[in-house]
Amino acid sequence: MRVLSTDLAGHVGERVTIAGWLHAKRELGSVSFAVLRDRTGFAQVVVPSNSLLLSHGSETVLEVEGLAVGNEQAPGGVELHEPSFRVLAEPAEAPPIELRRPELKESLPVRLDFAPVALRHPRVRDRFRVAAAAVQGFRAALDGLGFTEISTPKLVASATESGANVFTLDYFGREAFLAQSPQFYKQAMVGVFERVYETGHVFRAEPHDTGRHLAEYTSLDAELGFIQDHFDVMAVVREAVAGMMDAAGELGAEVPAEIPWVHFADTGVDDVDLAPADERRICEEHGELVFVTGFPMAKRPFYTHPEPGRPEYSNSFDLLFRGMEIVTGGQRLHRYEDYVAALGGDTEPFDGYLQAFKYGLPPHGGFALGLERFVAQLVGATNLRETTLFPRDMSRLSP
Amino acid sequence: MRVLSTDLAGHVGERVTIAGWLHAKRELGSVSFAVLRDRTGFAQVVVPSNSLLLSHGSETVLEVEGLAVGNEQAPGGVELHEPSFRVLAEPAEAPPIELRRPELKESLPVRLDFAPVALRHPRVRDRFRVAAAAVQGFRAALDGLGFTEISTPKLVASATESGANVFTLDYFGREAFLAQSPQFYKQAMVGVFERVYETGHVFRAEPHDTGRHLAEYTSLDAELGFIQDHFDVMAVVREAVAGMMDAAGELGAEVPAEIPWVHFADTGVDDVDLAPADERRICEEHGELVFVTGFPMAKRPFYTHPEPGRPEYSNSFDLLFRGMEIVTGGQRLHRYEDYVAALGGDTEPFDGYLQAFKYGLPPHGGFALGLERFVAQLVGATNLRETTLFPRDMSRLSP
Repeated sequence: MRVLSTDLAGHVGERVTIAGWLHAKRELGSVSFAVLRDRTGFAQVVVPSNSLLLSHGSETVLEVEGLAVGNEQAPGGVELHEPSFRVLAEPAEAPPIELRRPELKESLPVRLDFAPVALRHPRVRDRFRVAAAAVQGFRAALDGLGFTEISTPKLVASATESGANVFTLDYFGREAFLAQSPQFYKQAMVGVFERVYETGHVFRAEPHDTGRHLAEYTSLDAELGFIQDHFDVMAVVREAVAGMMDAAGELGAEVPAEIPWVHFADTGVDDVDLAPADERRICEEHGELVFVTGFPMAKRPFYTHPEPGRPEYSNSFDLLFRGMEIVTGGQRLHRYEDYVAALGGDTEPFDGYLQAFKYGLPPHGGFALGLERFVAQLVGATNLRETTLFPRDMSRLSP
Repeated sequence: MRVLSTDLAGHVGERVTIAGWLHAKRELGSVSFAVLRDRTGFAQVVVPSNSLLLSHGSETVLEVEGLAVGNEQAPGGVELHEPSFRVLAEPAEAPPIELRRPELKESLPVRLDFAPVALRHPRVRDRFRVAAAAVQGFRAALDGLGFTEISTPKLVASATESGANVFTLDYFGREAFLAQSPQFYKQAMVGVFERVYETGHVFRAEPHDTGRHLAEYTSLDAELGFIQDHFDVMAVVREAVAGMMDAAGELGAEVPAEIPWVHFADTGVDDVDLAPADERRICEEHGELVFVTGFPMAKRPFYTHPEPGRPEYSNSFDLLFRGMEIVTGGQRLHRYEDYVAALGGDTEPFDGYLQAFKYGLPPHGGFALGLERFVAQLVGATNLRETTLFPRDMSRLSP
């Protein structure tokens, strides 16, 4: 029965079996140390310096049986003595990444080229554990608010956001697209479940090589009906983000009961959208979490609900976190005739989508949060490739 | 403050506000009934037969304020009297699906063409609530076993399962594929987290129009390291499926502490794979949940681990449920040189994938479960289009 490294402290005085990857070796005179890495941490094994164990290279997968002995200087306060070992897998070559360092020294392109190895580094691995916890926090918060999880198609007949950055594919001899968002489907599902969320992949054929955009990412989407306006959506965003921050532990921010907000018209921005510098400044002025509401209609998608009385503005919002937009959302149009007008009468590519409105949909709205960007802001990464397991961009399609 | 229909019983004697879709009307002499549908159920409203409320058609979205009065014959035992109402959204036309019937009468193609409406029917909607609960049950079971959730790319450089039924797309001027499974990535992630799962979309360019296959579906995937053989994987399948059956309530099956299993060589099948009739027969013989193990290598993918001592068979399994395969899995090869041999030396398209093995991966295995097929078996649907929100097949790309 295998014991995980974090559980060793409960087995002092017993002979136990551990298993993991040979992470580091320290050879000192007559006695040496081997450090095994498993999914929970490290275990130190004390071996004679002539042990065959030391002949194996980094990332050899080993099973080690030995006596658990308390030692304050060992990781977790326990080390294994009098070991016997068995090789479970021998690497075919020495790894191209030096995993034993406290921080990886290799450049980002090298770490991405060898992602299956680089991701094994504990500091790198931890980012993706935070991502998994954050998604759990998102789902739990929305489950608690009566939302239902949905799974909607990524193969679609029309571009949801704009035609410019959409991937096209051959679908049994005709043209199909990869969904840029689940927007149309989550709106249609408001007619079924009233409150829905989806945690899935979205695809953007981003023609720019920046740290802020990738061709594929995980979008945490929600949509809800029977709202008054976008402030009802923002209240749900607050709960979802609070759930995610709780899950992120000490990396997270305190989420106030009501996140402050400022209308676009009052931000001092002399344009129709925020520039990155504006996002940083607004966070400096208002706090690490702040909503900007009422974005000009000129820069929001056609399904956005205008602001009553000020139709050049919209019932929309972004949530900024530590100087960067992490959530975008708003109230949507809900009347069929408003869609026909917004589309300028060219409704044919959207016929399937428009059914939801044609047959009665309440006032509704929703939001989307990019998971990789959220985690990047948590850990202070400036490039989304640091928080994506296997990033996809103009030049990168593998591993 | 809106009250949901299931909560009305707690408000008898109060004036309350409900909201939902006008589901049915019954006009009887001087008094009439309107039935409102919300996400939790139905609420009956008693209206004078000359009320303007009755002039509205099916699927009108209404907010109704009235006095909650106990009435044993009303759904939930409560109805609303003395109503006033407000129209939240008026359908642009009468719905093409008669939602008021206890079961929908429309043919499957019509229900799929008008999915945003047909999905509103409570019996249809409930299937997707079961699906959502089943996914939750899957995740909770694996979280409890120390698994970590991952999110891996769907845009890939090489076909994972076979080249035949893969979608091809233009990726910034070069060829890319849609992932047929997260197989390679979940194996690589065993090197990082040891135990991983993913609940994501997979894509198969299925050239056959059957009820058993779709071009896009939700695959519940898991992979784990440090196993002895495929029986360790089957033990995890048992826990995951038990979690899903619990979530499915009375539709689910009892899951025995150990699900029975039969080796392929002992099934009496005179071929290298099971036919649908074999799957039905084996369930009749062994129970509604049964593993078939040891499938011939001839029909399993190249990464499958052969059976020690009988290399024409494999350390693989399918789980049959009520006469149909719902899970496929097994032990994988874990040595780099075994992959080089299995690929016949042509490793170049798989270089990124093979890194995981080149740099040390323990014995491991995993499985995949098709969510829509699982739910179809639960509810007794014979066509996966009945348990997919917006199915994709050779002829259907919208809505």
